[in-house]
Amino acid sequence: MAQPIPEVVILRLPLYLRTLSRLAEKNIEVVSSRELGNHLQFTPAQIRKDLSYFGRFGKQGRGYDVKHLLAELKGILGLDRSWPMALIGVGQLGRAILSYRGFATEGFQIVAAFDSDPAKIGKRYGKLTIQDVAELNKTVAEQGIAIAIVAVPPSQAQQVINTLVASGVKAILNYVPITARLPKGVWLRDVDPTLALQTLTYHLKLGDTQA
Amino acid sequence: MAQPIPEVVILRLPLYLRTLSRLAEKNIEVVSSRELGNHLQFTPAQIRKDLSYFGRFGKQGRGYDVKHLLAELKGILGLDRSWPMALIGVGQLGRAILSYRGFATEGFQIVAAFDSDPAKIGKRYGKLTIQDVAELNKTVAEQGIAIAIVAVPPSQAQQVINTLVASGVKAILNYVPITARLPKGVWLRDVDPTLALQTLTYHLKLGDTQA
Repeated sequence: MAQPIPEVVILRLPLYLRTLSRLAEKNIEVVSSRELGNHLQFTPAQIRKDLSYFGRFGKQGRGYDVKHLLAELKGILGLDRSWPMALIGVGQLGRAILSYRGFATEGFQIVAAFDSDPAKIGKRYGKLTIQDVAELNKTVAEQGIAIAIVAVPPSQAQQVINTLVASGVKAILNYVPITARLPKGVWLRDVDPTLALQTLTYHLKLGDTQA
Repeated sequence: MAQPIPEVVILRLPLYLRTLSRLAEKNIEVVSSRELGNHLQFTPAQIRKDLSYFGRFGKQGRGYDVKHLLAELKGILGLDRSWPMALIGVGQLGRAILSYRGFATEGFQIVAAFDSDPAKIGKRYGKLTIQDVAELNKTVAEQGIAIAIVAVPPSQAQQVINTLVASGVKAILNYVPITARLPKGVWLRDVDPTLALQTLTYHLKLGDTQA
C-alpha cells in the first residue's frame, strides 16, 4: 500500500464493512460486485474500482469471498483491534454519547470522560467517573487513548481540541459545529447533523421531478 | 443548472457556507480562493472548481464577494427558507436532538416529535407534545413536513422509514446504524459516529509517520 488511497474511498469503506458483516451473519460466503452494489446503491464498476485500491479480492466470474474481504477490510481500517476513547463534555449530548451502544460493538470503548464543570466532576455514569479536564494529559498517556470525542459548548471547542492535540491525541470525533484548526498528523471528523441537513435541502429544493 | 452537480461537491457546500458566514460576521467583504482554501483546508484550485459548478462568482484577481457568494450558496442549497422537521424516537438520543441548538439557527425547526411508547406519548418536551407514530401521516400533511429525523432503536428503523416515505417525507436524517432501503426520489443522510470513527482508525493505523 505505497500509494495513497483517496480520502473519499476511505470514507466509503465502513459502508462495505457493514454490508459484508450482514452477509456473513446470514452465512453468505460469496458476493458479486453487482449484489454488493445493490446493497450499497453503488454501480458494480464503482465497487470494483474502490476495492482495487487494496489488491485483488475478487475472482473472475465468482465474486468476492465475504469472510476474506471482511477480514482484509478490517485490517486495512485498523479495526482488528479495540480503540480506547475519551469523551470531553458530559452535557446532554455527552450523556447520549455515553449511552450509545454502537461504539462498543465495533471495538470502540469510551474509557474516560471529562468535564470542566465542578458540579459534574467526580460523578459516576455507568463504569466511568467524570474527571476534571485538567487531568486529560495524564489519563491520555496512562490509558493509551488515541481517539477523543468532543461534545463541549462551541465556545470551548477549539481550546479543548488544542489541549487534546497537545496531549498526543491523533484522532478526534467532533460533535461541535465549528471549523476546527488542526496541525498535520491529527485527523478530525465532524458529526454535524446540520451539514447533512443542508445537503438534503439541496435535493428537496430541486423538487418532485425526481420522485 | 441543467447539469447535475456531483454529490461530493454538494456535500462540501455547507462547509463553504459556514466559512463564508464567519467571514461575513467579521465584516470581511472579499475573500480569495487561497484564503477560502486556508480556512477549509482545500487547495485554491479545488475551491475554484467546486464553485465553478454554480456560475462565475469570482472576479479575476479580486476574489469572491463574501455576501454575494453566501446568498447564492444559500439559494442553491435551499437555505433561503425554513424547513419544518419531525423527530421520530424520543429516547435519550432523541432528547439530545431536541435540545440541540444548531438546527434552529440554520432554519431547521423540529415542529413535531413521535414515539411508539405509550409512556412517552402525550408528554411535553419544551413546546412539543410527543405524538403517537400512528399520527405521522396526518401531522406530516398538516404541517408540511419535508424532513424527518429518525432516532428509534435499530430494529424499528426500516419500518419507521417506510412509514415516513409513505407519508410523503422526501428527506431523512438517520441516526440509526442500519443501511436503509429507499425508493428513488427520497434522500437520506446517516449521522453515524461509528462510520466516522472507522475512517479515523485508518489514519491512526498508518501511524506516526505523518505527524
